[in-house]
Amino acid sequence: MIELKSQGLASELDVQSWINTPEPLTLAKLRGKVVVLHAFQMLCPGCVSHGIPQASAIHEQYANAEVQVIGLHSVFEHHQVMNVEALKAFVDEYRLSFPIAVDKPSTTGPTPQTMKTYQMRGTPTLIIVDQHGHLRLNHFGRLSDMQVGSFIGHLLSENKQPLFTQQHSSPGNPDHKKCDADSCQI
Amino acid sequence: MIELKSQGLASELDVQSWINTPEPLTLAKLRGKVVVLHAFQMLCPGCVSHGIPQASAIHEQYANAEVQVIGLHSVFEHHQVMNVEALKAFVDEYRLSFPIAVDKPSTTGPTPQTMKTYQMRGTPTLIIVDQHGHLRLNHFGRLSDMQVGSFIGHLLSENKQPLFTQQHSSPGNPDHKKCDADSCQI
Amino acid sequence: MIELKSQGLASELDVQSWINTPEPLTLAKLRGKVVVLHAFQMLCPGCVSHGIPQASAIHEQYANAEVQVIGLHSVFEHHQVMNVEALKAFVDEYRLSFPIAVDKPSTTGPTPQTMKTYQMRGTPTLIIVDQHGHLRLNHFGRLSDMQVGSFIGHLLSENKQPLFTQQHSSPGNPDHKKCDADSCQI
Amino acid sequence: MIELKSQGLASELDVQSWINTPEPLTLAKLRGKVVVLHAFQMLCPGCVSHGIPQASAIHEQYANAEVQVIGLHSVFEHHQVMNVEALKAFVDEYRLSFPIAVDKPSTTGPTPQTMKTYQMRGTPTLIIVDQHGHLRLNHFGRLSDMQVGSFIGHLLSENKQPLFTQQHSSPGNPDHKKCDADSCQI
Repeated sequence: MIELKSQGLASELDVQSWINTPEPLTLAKLRGKVVVLHAFQMLCPGCVSHGIPQASAIHEQYANAEVQVIGLHSVFEHHQVMNVEALKAFVDEYRLSFPIAVDKPSTTGPTPQTMKTYQMRGTPTLIIVDQHGHLRLNHFGRLSDMQVGSFIGHLLSENKQPLFTQQHSSPGNPDHKKCDADSCQI
Repeated sequence: MIELKSQGLASELDVQSWINTPEPLTLAKLRGKVVVLHAFQMLCPGCVSHGIPQASAIHEQYANAEVQVIGLHSVFEHHQVMNVEALKAFVDEYRLSFPIAVDKPSTTGPTPQTMKTYQMRGTPTLIIVDQHGHLRLNHFGRLSDMQVGSFIGHLLSENKQPLFTQQHSSPGNPDHKKCDADSCQI
Repeated sequence: MIELKSQGLASELDVQSWINTPEPLTLAKLRGKVVVLHAFQMLCPGCVSHGIPQASAIHEQYANAEVQVIGLHSVFEHHQVMNVEALKAFVDEYRLSFPIAVDKPSTTGPTPQTMKTYQMRGTPTLIIVDQHGHLRLNHFGRLSDMQVGSFIGHLLSENKQPLFTQQHSSPGNPDHKKCDADSCQI
Repeated sequence: MIELKSQGLASELDVQSWINTPEPLTLAKLRGKVVVLHAFQMLCPGCVSHGIPQASAIHEQYANAEVQVIGLHSVFEHHQVMNVEALKAFVDEYRLSFPIAVDKPSTTGPTPQTMKTYQMRGTPTLIIVDQHGHLRLNHFGRLSDMQVGSFIGHLLSENKQPLFTQQHSSPGNPDHKKCDADSCQI
């Protein structure tokens, strides 16, 4: 079972540089917002096929809500080729638009700083911090969109924040009483 | 934008018979639970490919939470072949396990009673009723899993109900420092 | 391993009625064409999710080639609800456009005639008959699109028939030197 | 329409180095086999999501047939970060097992040699060479698995080569007369 119990104040991000943001973000500055931190590596297949599209979907769906998506590039292997320049090309080719932080390399081993602080087991890892800066989820591996949606909806509601989402309008089929791939109309 | 504003007390279901439940369900009896009503037709392609799998996922994911999934078979065309006997074969073949109500046929037209009461435009339609019996969502067409998860998480939180979900454990790959389709491990 | 060895002359279809064709088809009349016979039941989940879309894709892709797709509704359970009228509603709702035969019910048991003749184990079953009327494949269960494409390409080539397929044109992205979901352009 | 008309003898590959092969491959040495050349870039989203999995599927499906899959890393942008070392990490993380050639950089511009010779428009590009070394397909963008299977089946048949494929066995469900996601059994 996954609960959303607070695990205390979330540790601040310890990062080297940022992409897609005019100035560095900090958890302290993001109080009042739900922060969804997606830790990934650009050459991690599960991140590319599942985690990053999910992070993009959160970024898009809660565009008008008090939710901040942050990518965290936490490289623990193949450091030379997953460098900042390569990450920038990746972000460009995949047209990612949410802010992405580069986890600070460690001086003592392959695992970068924020990854160590949060005791992450690998990538993708999803971390959710609530509006008060408390760590509420730290999950290694794949979560379904329904689970992630539930977590975010729960946290927004706790603080009486409205749940706005992009409407996928369903205008219906042009031909009456017929079905298309999405629906059948009266 | 989709909001979850209350639209007043939800109208009671007006149904002909039930499948997968020892006794009929009513919204009145379900106070205290979030009720997710999935209106479908067994020969509606969008219901079969998207709506019913989503309803099953909700049923499974919130198995231990205060959420009740109900299927509502609201037939407004091809009545003769989408009868109760056919629906039972469908439920059997697709191995559906959540309660399913058969919407009561109208005496005055093709659209059944509950479908008319809720002014549904077709199938699939997703209706969400909160713990106080208030109608919070009435949506025709496809919604993403992330949206539906958000709605349910929001309503559970409003009533200080915990958010329990089935854990998709991520035990990691057997070979250290390698990636599989889901993740890369330290 | 699946080979395409001839298993002798394919038995003629023994069917009750047809949908989507002005007059009945027979294997005899289809000599010179590759015949792809997709045996299904309208309430078989694997047929609906995989087999029928695959049959539709073959029908569409080889529209200008010497390939004839035929659906065969071979009902061996729930006969009362998977009747011809229900099948017609199904074909209408799913907008299927290839010819579909209704397998002739047996007088001695639940399994219909053509299904018995071909000793099918269930649905979906894919049967491929070559240009000379010889049975070349009789496969129960799921086959990949790549496998089915290989079989058809192989049989067309055997008879020096050209391989025409619908072109999925790839006009490229409007913005030079950028990637979209499909490709990156020079 | 896509035809498989011969476009003359295919130009030899002009490459810098190889991965996943003990010694360099040449089209000349591969006479007698169908050669499927998948030109890609490691940071091309459409290659990663569609082209490379398709190349892997061809490699796996025709493992015992006279088909040789070759990846061709043809980088025309972001050269510094899509270098050989990065490609090796990519191949390792994605567990690719077919031979991959690194297209030779041009001294006069960003487009590498083999890419220029074949006048490719971008990535992914699929090139198919027949058993006699003739170029039969040179396609930019996405092709369906069914189309690619058709082409390969057609070329194998032309040379009277048997079509062997990995069998996806369909042993059926354990419970008689029931449906699972794949099939319904008699």
